[in-house]
Amino acid sequence: MTDLYPSRCEPDPRILPRLEPVVHGSRDPAAPLTPAQIERFDRDGYLVLHNLFTPEEVAALRESATHILADPTALARETVITEPGGAEVRSVFMIHRQSAVMSRLASDVRLAGLARFLLNDEVYIHQSRLNYKPGFVGKEFYWHSDFETWHVEDGMPRMRALSMSILLAPNSELNGPLMVMPGSHRKYLTCVGETPENHYRSSLKRQEYGVPDPDALAALAVEHGIVAATGQAGTVVIFDCNTMHGSNGNITPFPRANAFFVYNAISNRLLAPFGPKSPRPEFVASRQCMPVLDRPAATLLEAAS
Amino acid sequence: MTDLYPSRCEPDPRILPRLEPVVHGSRDPAAPLTPAQIERFDRDGYLVLHNLFTPEEVAALRESATHILADPTALARETVITEPGGAEVRSVFMIHRQSAVMSRLASDVRLAGLARFLLNDEVYIHQSRLNYKPGFVGKEFYWHSDFETWHVEDGMPRMRALSMSILLAPNSELNGPLMVMPGSHRKYLTCVGETPENHYRSSLKRQEYGVPDPDALAALAVEHGIVAATGQAGTVVIFDCNTMHGSNGNITPFPRANAFFVYNAISNRLLAPFGPKSPRPEFVASRQCMPVLDRPAATLLEAAS
Repeated sequence: MTDLYPSRCEPDPRILPRLEPVVHGSRDPAAPLTPAQIERFDRDGYLVLHNLFTPEEVAALRESATHILADPTALARETVITEPGGAEVRSVFMIHRQSAVMSRLASDVRLAGLARFLLNDEVYIHQSRLNYKPGFVGKEFYWHSDFETWHVEDGMPRMRALSMSILLAPNSELNGPLMVMPGSHRKYLTCVGETPENHYRSSLKRQEYGVPDPDALAALAVEHGIVAATGQAGTVVIFDCNTMHGSNGNITPFPRANAFFVYNAISNRLLAPFGPKSPRPEFVASRQCMPVLDRPAATLLEAAS
Repeated sequence: MTDLYPSRCEPDPRILPRLEPVVHGSRDPAAPLTPAQIERFDRDGYLVLHNLFTPEEVAALRESATHILADPTALARETVITEPGGAEVRSVFMIHRQSAVMSRLASDVRLAGLARFLLNDEVYIHQSRLNYKPGFVGKEFYWHSDFETWHVEDGMPRMRALSMSILLAPNSELNGPLMVMPGSHRKYLTCVGETPENHYRSSLKRQEYGVPDPDALAALAVEHGIVAATGQAGTVVIFDCNTMHGSNGNITPFPRANAFFVYNAISNRLLAPFGPKSPRPEFVASRQCMPVLDRPAATLLEAAS
């Protein structure tokens, strides 16, 4: 298999063109997004859908999240990631297989239906997480393109995946929200430095390889600008797999929490990694490829009760 | 001397009332601020004056700042503060005595004249700094009231001082701007834990004592909210000595830079510290009390040329 997006194999970073479309679906009247929304996602590489979930649904999801975070011993140990140098839980991976509510959420038509449309294929969950950035001490997450990592370390061949972040707490500019460089998804910025084996154990806490070059990042930021994806709880932020993003730390008392699902097109399932020999484990990058079912919005609250 | 604001001497934090006014000057027509601006500073404990300095003046000040940061060996060694765990310069103290341009800036009527009016007294520079928060790796600065530190560690008796930050680079919500809790300046939140001797050496990098209690901070934040003081280069942010403030880290490529002057009323000059016995050194907390001269705005560029 030719590596269309080689990275971490040359001494200097390069910018390669994106070979796939951003919106794979057709812009027909039955689309679950308006033409303006589709245009925006295509152009910017991200889209904010405010208040997609009702306050009652948010309350149920938060309760589920609190329940998950309150008892990490009930979870597969390797799926629980703590803050660097601390004991606070930062992320729980594979939540769609460890929580009935989160499993139901992942297959909600408001999320999975959009993913299916934008990717124009059946979809499966490549990765899922419950993210919690505590108040006062929440650490930053440095700039990266998810696709670069998923390609090199997981063997995702093409750019036909996207992420959805369901905000479970208000995200303002000041409590470490997702920051994106709009339009950066059209360029593939290669990284330098080979990837050590079993790198994922530390990278889930703090990235050291697959880190973009500062000069290239600065140029991208000047060209594309940086915006924060903010909104109330219940808002959904969708972003393309190759959008450059990161988040600042959070000294405010207001924690940030979200449920996070990566949908990949079935036709884009993982191959052998293009970088290190051994693939990352199932809880970080699924190879099971089970198509996500379609559950109507009306039944989410039933599942949570 | 009775300690009107005891702190770091009880096991639990307390909130004490502020005993001094915020605006000491009279609201007469000759005031250098509009009645609405005075009202806002009085109510919120901070005020943003957009583009107080012209682009030409900003260019000259930036050139001076670049010059100062480029050759730290030309500065008194103890005045140069690096990032925690790094070599990047984070602050240079006592810039008004180490740079002719910064000395001139401190006495500019647009700054010193405002300070004199708001404090209704002759003023002197209690502390001055050039702050530089680099892009990508700029660290956070945790919540604190300056007055708590200046009172306990420096012996400042009363709340009759204020800070002015002259922005030398654009400050957005996303590159680690000053965050304040509007209205928090009317309450004095005591801290717990005694102060070790010579604490200042580490506290200039990262605060460990004189840190407000998280529960009290969270309550303050809920009551007062948190806002970022943002603006273009040339903007001046004024804030009261007791306003609760801090700043997040900065992973954007855009550095943050400002010149920072603390004006204290001559009548409020430093006594012996109310906490540790030995006062902090002159470069952090001046005891010389030289009244700031008054220099007309028109001559700033001459001084810089």
